[in-house]
Amino acid sequence: MTEPIRDLARIGHAELLTPKPEESLRFFVDVLGMEEEARDGQSVFLRGWGDYLRYSLKLTESPHAGLGHVALRAWSPEALDRRVAAIEASGHGLGWIEGDVGHGPAYTFKDPDEHLFELYYEAERYEAPEHLRPSWRNQPQRYVGRGAAVKRLDHVNVLAADVRANRTFAQDVLGYRLYERIELDDGTETGAWMSLSIAAHELIYVADAHKATGRLHHLAFWVDTREECLRAADIFVDHNVPIEAAPSKHGVAQGFFLYGFEPGGNRIEVTTGGYFVYDPDFEPITWTAAERARGQYWGVKTIESFHTYGTPDVGVDG
Amino acid sequence: MTEPIRDLARIGHAELLTPKPEESLRFFVDVLGMEEEARDGQSVFLRGWGDYLRYSLKLTESPHAGLGHVALRAWSPEALDRRVAAIEASGHGLGWIEGDVGHGPAYTFKDPDEHLFELYYEAERYEAPEHLRPSWRNQPQRYVGRGAAVKRLDHVNVLAADVRANRTFAQDVLGYRLYERIELDDGTETGAWMSLSIAAHELIYVADAHKATGRLHHLAFWVDTREECLRAADIFVDHNVPIEAAPSKHGVAQGFFLYGFEPGGNRIEVTTGGYFVYDPDFEPITWTAAERARGQYWGVKTIESFHTYGTPDVGVDG
Amino acid sequence: MTEPIRDLARIGHAELLTPKPEESLRFFVDVLGMEEEARDGQSVFLRGWGDYLRYSLKLTESPHAGLGHVALRAWSPEALDRRVAAIEASGHGLGWIEGDVGHGPAYTFKDPDEHLFELYYEAERYEAPEHLRPSWRNQPQRYVGRGAAVKRLDHVNVLAADVRANRTFAQDVLGYRLYERIELDDGTETGAWMSLSIAAHELIYVADAHKATGRLHHLAFWVDTREECLRAADIFVDHNVPIEAAPSKHGVAQGFFLYGFEPGGNRIEVTTGGYFVYDPDFEPITWTAAERARGQYWGVKTIESFHTYGTPDVGVDG
Amino acid sequence: MTEPIRDLARIGHAELLTPKPEESLRFFVDVLGMEEEARDGQSVFLRGWGDYLRYSLKLTESPHAGLGHVALRAWSPEALDRRVAAIEASGHGLGWIEGDVGHGPAYTFKDPDEHLFELYYEAERYEAPEHLRPSWRNQPQRYVGRGAAVKRLDHVNVLAADVRANRTFAQDVLGYRLYERIELDDGTETGAWMSLSIAAHELIYVADAHKATGRLHHLAFWVDTREECLRAADIFVDHNVPIEAAPSKHGVAQGFFLYGFEPGGNRIEVTTGGYFVYDPDFEPITWTAAERARGQYWGVKTIESFHTYGTPDVGVDG
Repeated sequence: MTEPIRDLARIGHAELLTPKPEESLRFFVDVLGMEEEARDGQSVFLRGWGDYLRYSLKLTESPHAGLGHVALRAWSPEALDRRVAAIEASGHGLGWIEGDVGHGPAYTFKDPDEHLFELYYEAERYEAPEHLRPSWRNQPQRYVGRGAAVKRLDHVNVLAADVRANRTFAQDVLGYRLYERIELDDGTETGAWMSLSIAAHELIYVADAHKATGRLHHLAFWVDTREECLRAADIFVDHNVPIEAAPSKHGVAQGFFLYGFEPGGNRIEVTTGGYFVYDPDFEPITWTAAERARGQYWGVKTIESFHTYGTPDVGVDG
Repeated sequence: MTEPIRDLARIGHAELLTPKPEESLRFFVDVLGMEEEARDGQSVFLRGWGDYLRYSLKLTESPHAGLGHVALRAWSPEALDRRVAAIEASGHGLGWIEGDVGHGPAYTFKDPDEHLFELYYEAERYEAPEHLRPSWRNQPQRYVGRGAAVKRLDHVNVLAADVRANRTFAQDVLGYRLYERIELDDGTETGAWMSLSIAAHELIYVADAHKATGRLHHLAFWVDTREECLRAADIFVDHNVPIEAAPSKHGVAQGFFLYGFEPGGNRIEVTTGGYFVYDPDFEPITWTAAERARGQYWGVKTIESFHTYGTPDVGVDG
Repeated sequence: MTEPIRDLARIGHAELLTPKPEESLRFFVDVLGMEEEARDGQSVFLRGWGDYLRYSLKLTESPHAGLGHVALRAWSPEALDRRVAAIEASGHGLGWIEGDVGHGPAYTFKDPDEHLFELYYEAERYEAPEHLRPSWRNQPQRYVGRGAAVKRLDHVNVLAADVRANRTFAQDVLGYRLYERIELDDGTETGAWMSLSIAAHELIYVADAHKATGRLHHLAFWVDTREECLRAADIFVDHNVPIEAAPSKHGVAQGFFLYGFEPGGNRIEVTTGGYFVYDPDFEPITWTAAERARGQYWGVKTIESFHTYGTPDVGVDG
Repeated sequence: MTEPIRDLARIGHAELLTPKPEESLRFFVDVLGMEEEARDGQSVFLRGWGDYLRYSLKLTESPHAGLGHVALRAWSPEALDRRVAAIEASGHGLGWIEGDVGHGPAYTFKDPDEHLFELYYEAERYEAPEHLRPSWRNQPQRYVGRGAAVKRLDHVNVLAADVRANRTFAQDVLGYRLYERIELDDGTETGAWMSLSIAAHELIYVADAHKATGRLHHLAFWVDTREECLRAADIFVDHNVPIEAAPSKHGVAQGFFLYGFEPGGNRIEVTTGGYFVYDPDFEPITWTAAERARGQYWGVKTIESFHTYGTPDVGVDG
């Protein structure tokens, strides 16, 4: 077997675009319970109580909803250099930028579906101000417990016209490991769940029903327990957050979920659970269309909009 | 920074010694809910419903309780070779053995405290027999739900006369990452929590109060939720399993725990929770004696036996 | 205000009819985790670990599925006499029977929709045999933890051609308190949630879509936590129990639910949650059809069969 | 058997005295998550999100901590009259007062241990203002989810020099049902758990170690799940609320608990769980000193202050 590429450590943060910056900010602060860590231009930088870096979400005003970029953190400066070289060789590279709030120089590129990514190594650790200092030092921030009280950004799910092309790029050039995928009877790949760690999904590509490019399916934020997902659903209901899919357990990847829409129109997940892949020779699961027709783990039929709607919205959905 | 050694993937299994093999087996099957996967000589091989390999626990009859060995799985044959070379260079190596039920050739060695380890790469994936076939293929085995229904072996905690020596061996020779440690005012290191993955602890060394060698503190088995830990406590109570420490949350590493004793005398934990370390530059937390005096996360004072008892028992404890 | 009639204490047990007695028995013992307490003729008497009386379910072989009877326990012999007199005065009485396993003389009657009920006072407390003796005496039975490990029968939901007639009978003659109801725009009552205690629902009538009589919608069994409902769903999946409705939270009465079908065809709920009604002047909630169109609490659309299928099955459903 | 007296419905509210009114108010609003419903003189009236009446806690400035009074609500005006007559006949009556915020005329009395009680029937239902209007009408208030987000006052635990005298008064004069009690080998009764409903404890008397009179052991506030108790403990830790007893399960009455101290010095519990007593002939459990020595349900030893400290503080404790 070939040894895995392990130059990238994690998704450091994602940038979300919103046409309703004030309402979106209130959602992330009041409903999801994140803290505002910094502001810069039209952007607000937000963190969960378990983020060790300064933030995991950059929220940016924009004419339309969608994904700004996904920022991947390398394991070391050398690992960063290796990945940059690989991306340049792939022809997808764009070039270096100076950095941003909380992190140093970053190399930007687009995946085959035109989603913007950046790669960086230098990052500032979070130092909690007095009013957010935790009681235990192995926790980066005080547990405030506001709203859904999400701990951190967990995974990014993006739409792609050609899932296979993006998945192989993520594996071969970035070093993601593939854990689960969906392949139709005609050989079309319609979903791929990948990770840089033992966690069963960190980056997901699913087929874009509209064959558009660069769209976002959802950002997922982590809570430690299923009970917190159920509690988040109560909070969504009483904060008038539209729920697309009530709490249940996914068949693919077994994550426990709650899906709703933030005011800017982006789909947001509150998630927990799933399984860990400790073994090097884990065989990726390939699901058929027939198997997917079973619905979610406990038989819940997936709502149609989940298969079609993404941001920016390109059509009749939502 | 130096890039981490990442040649080892996980603890594949641990071998537990028991002077009461029948009662111990009943504990692991009826109370913890594991399945018997194989037998060989005086050993029974047991698995949780979430184990992707054939087993994670080898239970072996022995005159006294304690740890038989810990088996570490490498990421690849090449990674295995690199670690064997490093161990040999350290002077701790013992040599190759042919293998065991479910895995291929293994290189054996002892850590500085004389705990027996083995390193291997080749392993058999679990194929569930008909009556244990799961409904969803991304789960290795049917969820039977018997007893505490542990999912898999989670971590191994061993006692050591010299924690620092063993911790640095695990870091430098095996490639473990250090996440948390305890250091007394006089500089003595009394605990070290290490991992090969983002999970906050997989291998732990704590000071042996009796300065004995090769002893076990506990084996920990994973459940997905805190509610399952609470449920396990109810099951322990009604199965007359002695509970040493009722469910609560650790200060160090933040794991949620339940501790009891299996009939052979070994301490067993049912665990969940904790946090993930995604970042390469995570700074290990060092706790002082004063901080540890706070007790556990929610203030529970740690029972004295937890600091002194291990297996084999060497004295006045338990 | 008129003071409430409080002569009845609880649903002591319900009798369920099944054309597949062996498979149904295995379901209640292996999947729901009940204990067999007695057998008599074609009936098996089953109990949850929290039942203080000997059993709460009588499972009886029958040519078709459905409800055998519901047995209501009075607060005292005098209270029993008062209710018998009221039932006789209502013209619905049938007469006394000698008793049954575990309870004394019972007065039988039919509600306006022809469901068979019985009223009794004398009942045998459960005395656990040695192998089921609990560790704590305020628990009637050892917590075995098998399968879904239901604690006891919680509520009975029956179909009725005329909900209003049955609801007023239950209130005026039996002394049930009404907590929630559904009334369509044309004044038709299509559901009524009633209780003898602070628990928000113990006896429920919902409209029979087929205008049949005497049919059962479902029996509900209690677990203490929502996590146990989720766990029960996992167990259903891996025991091939058909799930009709995955775990979620009801809008009406706010109970947390999981619905499936036992092998005999009867719908079974595993339930927890809800709210308590402590106040004497609680105003029953009346829901409109428009409000019910919202689906369940978190927006889950109720599956069509839930509105039409009952036992015995009379038609095109299921 | 004698039929039970069922003239009283519930504890409508309790009044808590605090020498630190501002800090105590912040605790109940920010940490427990209650809403301020009204103010009057030196008192603030507070409610949980599940309270159907306007409030369940009256917080009053006072030179010392302790219990102001416990207010019991009758089932009807006639039931109120009957209980007043019984209290007067017992010689413990004090007389009528005009009422208070949210309720009508009340009859006051002292139990044998000199705790002040009042009895009333007329009470105002809560009508949520616009910003607290719930999404579902069977919930009195929007689920805000702030802090521990307690649902309502659950039970009151008071100290008494003579538990037996107070317990029999509560049973014979007020109509409480006794579910569990502790009796030492010398016949001294040291604890009594009583209820007006199926809930296993609403009013508790435990022995006052200092033989003082009129003292409070704790007020308990309800949450629906054990997970919320665990979450409340995290919130306590990071709000610097002193935790006396970390979350665990009581042996007596089986309630799940978290105990801490509000800034005024009163002990506060966040609670859930327990069991229901549906049967009229439930035999009260009597625990011996030997049995109590087992500690709590999962073996946790009860901290000494729990047996001695109460408010007002009379001595060396705390």
